[in-house]
Parts: sequence; structure tokens; C-alpha cells
Amino acid sequence: MKNITFSKKDIDNMESRYRTRLINSLAGYKSANLIGTCDQQGNENLAIVSSVIHLGSQPPLFGFVVRPRNSRRHTLENILETKHFTINAVAASFFQQAHQTSARYPKHISEFVAVGLTPYYEPSFPAPFVLDSNLKMGLVLKEHIHIKSNNTEMLIGEVVSIHMSEQAIMPDGYLDLESIDLVTISGLDSYHVTQRLDRLSYAKPEESLVSLNRRGEP
Amino acid sequence: MKNITFSKKDIDNMESRYRTRLINSLAGYKSANLIGTCDQQGNENLAIVSSVIHLGSQPPLFGFVVRPRNSRRHTLENILETKHFTINAVAASFFQQAHQTSARYPKHISEFVAVGLTPYYEPSFPAPFVLDSNLKMGLVLKEHIHIKSNNTEMLIGEVVSIHMSEQAIMPDGYLDLESIDLVTISGLDSYHVTQRLDRLSYAKPEESLVSLNRRGEP
Repeated sequence: MKNITFSKKDIDNMESRYRTRLINSLAGYKSANLIGTCDQQGNENLAIVSSVIHLGSQPPLFGFVVRPRNSRRHTLENILETKHFTINAVAASFFQQAHQTSARYPKHISEFVAVGLTPYYEPSFPAPFVLDSNLKMGLVLKEHIHIKSNNTEMLIGEVVSIHMSEQAIMPDGYLDLESIDLVTISGLDSYHVTQRLDRLSYAKPEESLVSLNRRGEP
Repeated sequence: MKNITFSKKDIDNMESRYRTRLINSLAGYKSANLIGTCDQQGNENLAIVSSVIHLGSQPPLFGFVVRPRNSRRHTLENILETKHFTINAVAASFFQQAHQTSARYPKHISEFVAVGLTPYYEPSFPAPFVLDSNLKMGLVLKEHIHIKSNNTEMLIGEVVSIHMSEQAIMPDGYLDLESIDLVTISGLDSYHVTQRLDRLSYAKPEESLVSLNRRGEP
């Protein structure tokens, strides 16, 4: 395969939208999630986010990144206001609707209504879940970090409830995301389903890896 | 599909390894990258990481999370020492070797040697790249954030060079990650290849999304 190298100067000189697409593609595949929030008046917001990362399991913490200036601004404002949000995994059956939430709707427009997804409320939890999603969690804001390098904000939440398809849970706790058709994102706008290569055993020095896949099991 | 709900109490009461596998699976698909570093004596380290996220394109910034106590500790120490690291995307042809880097090797053992991957150095850049990877970048440390909620560290770097297969670059700057067989991770130990559903146009209110895929183009 023919290789190409870009220096810092090459990157700086790229046409702006070309650079955005290329740099966005560099990290590899990203998770596809909808963040559900509302403000204190109950105006709902739903925003697709590809930056959700797992930070720890005990306590169960997830973080994601928002830029104050972009279409996820309402998400940031709502979470700082109500301290609650939901993370809802995007499946192949509604990835176009999920993508459409990235349009800049005015604050009084609910993206649920605009794109045709169904909000669902849990008793005594103020943020809306996406009924259409087979893997959703409710979180309470734990930490708000300002990233100085480019004025972005990272919000960290602790999981207080999980709602999911029982069929996805394997006996050891691993979730078979393929069984519920979750998608992954590359770059700004590409959506993919996946095919498992293997599950591998816990790695130890001087020990060979073992496949955890048995016939018919993920 | 039958649904199941876990409360905070249910999560707290899960068996520890079961909870770790389940919580790790919740964010969805994650990027698969090898972080290459060395200390000031030139001892190399290579560690698989699934938490790399894109933070911005101008300047081009990526971040990832490390826990001071786990096998990525040497990665953290080396980056704080030399201020340089590489991010190398994992492809299907070497995902087992990439996974094996998560074993707890002593500091004087190079994971490159232990797992059988080839280090590659660029003139005047102190951190090793993975020659086997078709998508690699060199970064300079910009910011080090301590996450108080669970004592993890986030390292943020600015991209100063990119080395990749030319065939992956589409005319608009998007990288076709499938053309270079990149993998994605779910949970702690599952590796997947992908199949594109579609690329979608920039979303605007009151406008229908258009597929950016044309026949034979990603």
C-alpha cells in the first residue's frame, strides 16, 4: 500500500472542511449515542454524540465532550441546570433519525418530535430516555471539566439506572451489542454495523491468548 | 424483546468482574488504538487503549484516559517524562498482538518485542510508531487533566504528524477505515470489523438527509 505523510504544516494548510473530516476520522470507530436532557421548564433536547467514553466501573462513570458553541449547547445548558441526563445507544433501525438530531433546532423545538423518536420517562428521573433504544442509561452529573486546549467541556456522570434488552446480556456480564444492532460512527457522518472477529481472554505475560467465543456464543 | 432494568442498588450488588464487563460494554463500540511511548532511557512501551476521543480539529486534538494503577501506568509515566506519544490504529491483521500488550509486562520489557510488532521512528520524534499500523499519528502533550471522580488521568495531545495508507483518503477528506481493515472494541475483550450502512449529509432543520454514498464509493 502506498503511504502518505502529513506534517503539522500540511495539516494547518488543509482546506477547513477537508481537515475537519480527516482529523475527525483519525481516532477510529466511535460510539453512537443520543444524550437526552430537558431544562427546568421541561423543554426536551436530544443530541447525537460520538464522544462517550467509559471512565470506570466502580462507581460506573461515563464522560462525553461538548463544545459550547455547537448544536449540543442546549445539552450542556440542560445538564448544568438539572444535573441529570440519559445516554441511549443508537441502533441500525433509527440511525438516520439519530443523525438528524445534529441539526440546529431552536431551543423550544424538541428533537424527539422533530426527528420522530419517542421520549420515555422513568419515575423521579427528570431526563427523557429514548424508547426506541434497546440500551439506555440514566446518569447524574458528577463532574464538569473545562478543557483549556480548545475550550471544550467534558461532562462526567454516574450511572443510576440501566434499561436494556435482556437478550444482549451474556452469562459473564459482557453485552452482545451485535444482538441489538448497535451502530458505530466513523468521521463526522458514516454509520456502520459490526461483525465480531473474536473475544479474547485476559492477557498475561508468557501466556497465549484464548478465544472466549464458543460456537453460537458471542 | 424482553427488557430488564438495573437500579443503582442492583449495579452496586453485582459480582465485581460481572459488573466490570457489563459497565464496560455500555458505552457502545470503542476505538482500538495502540499508544507508543518510551522513557528518557529509550525503554519502549506499547499499550492498547479504547478511550481515544477526538476533541477538535483546529488545532487537531485527541485525548485518552489512563488509570495510574493499571498496566497503562508506564504509558502515563513516559508521556509525562518525554511529552510525546503516538496513536496507532489497530487492524484485523494484528488485533491479537494488540490485545496482548495489555498484559502486565515489567518496565524493561518492550511490548513491541513481547507481542511481535515493529517499532518505527521518525526523525526528531522521540516516541515509537507501530510500523504494522496503516493509520498512525505523532502527538505532543498539551494538557493533563486529573478526573477527581475516580482518580483517573486524561492526557490530551496535539497531532504533529500523520502517516497513513493513501488509499484510505476520500476526495472530501473522510477516511475510509474499512479499506484498511480497522477494528473496533466492545466491552473489555471483543474485537469487530465493520460494514458501512451509509454516509449521511450535514443535517439541517426542515431538510431531508441525503446519502453521501455513491456506487463503489464509501
